[in-house]
Amino acid sequence: MATSFDPALVTRAYELALKSYREGGCPIGSVLARDGAIIGEGHNRRVQQGDPIAHGEMDCLRNAGRQRSYAGTTLYTSLSPCMMCAGTIVQFGIPHVVIAENVNFGGNEDFLRSRGVVVDVVGDARCIDLMRRFIAEQPALWNEDIAEE
Amino acid sequence: MATSFDPALVTRAYELALKSYREGGCPIGSVLARDGAIIGEGHNRRVQQGDPIAHGEMDCLRNAGRQRSYAGTTLYTSLSPCMMCAGTIVQFGIPHVVIAENVNFGGNEDFLRSRGVVVDVVGDARCIDLMRRFIAEQPALWNEDIAEE
Repeated sequence: MATSFDPALVTRAYELALKSYREGGCPIGSVLARDGAIIGEGHNRRVQQGDPIAHGEMDCLRNAGRQRSYAGTTLYTSLSPCMMCAGTIVQFGIPHVVIAENVNFGGNEDFLRSRGVVVDVVGDARCIDLMRRFIAEQPALWNEDIAEE
Repeated sequence: MATSFDPALVTRAYELALKSYREGGCPIGSVLARDGAIIGEGHNRRVQQGDPIAHGEMDCLRNAGRQRSYAGTTLYTSLSPCMMCAGTIVQFGIPHVVIAENVNFGGNEDFLRSRGVVVDVVGDARCIDLMRRFIAEQPALWNEDIAEE
């Protein structure tokens, strides 16, 4: 299926990931847009707030606040969604997800598609490099964030 | 598979649901236990905090804070988990979920079992009655909470 996305919002997800990295946190950022306009953005806050559910996508959805509907929205994320975030995308009825990269983490793309979500994978080199650097520098934190023992 | 659960923690999940109901919120409560001891508890805070990701289970996991591992934990919830909460249970590796009721909402039990989670459904009359009353009183809020339009 041919879809479209806004490269500027991929860049914004990267910038939020970089902000979190510079704060000592997990570098995953996310943006929620409707009709091209940002209605929420966020980044992983496991370290910053001691909050295990604050993955980038979740923090973004929290910051977007209560929505009557997620019709017409697109969720941008710097890294492929984990099962928590993928389940949330399905539950909320978010129709379109733009994944900046799934080289360092992935696997839930088919689950999302099986539930009717349109998934684009960009292959953004900035996000790949940042995430790779983080995993090399902080493997214990990364494993905690994805619940790998 | 024969499993076991603590009826006192089902009661605690109900009490947390009732607390949220009395605050004008969605009446869903949750408790996380390890080796029989509570390590986190919470309830839906969509109304109280304007937070769409704060389902009962999510608020409980947030309050439990960062965990190196969820091995040996059991998550009690007054209502069957939605896809967000079910995805989170799988992602976090929570091995056992005790669902007080799935009469008013359900459907993700098989997904959880397919990912190796042991699921008990209690059929707690207090939780069934409270949830039924809430849905009758506040259908718009309930539909927003489960993203039904």
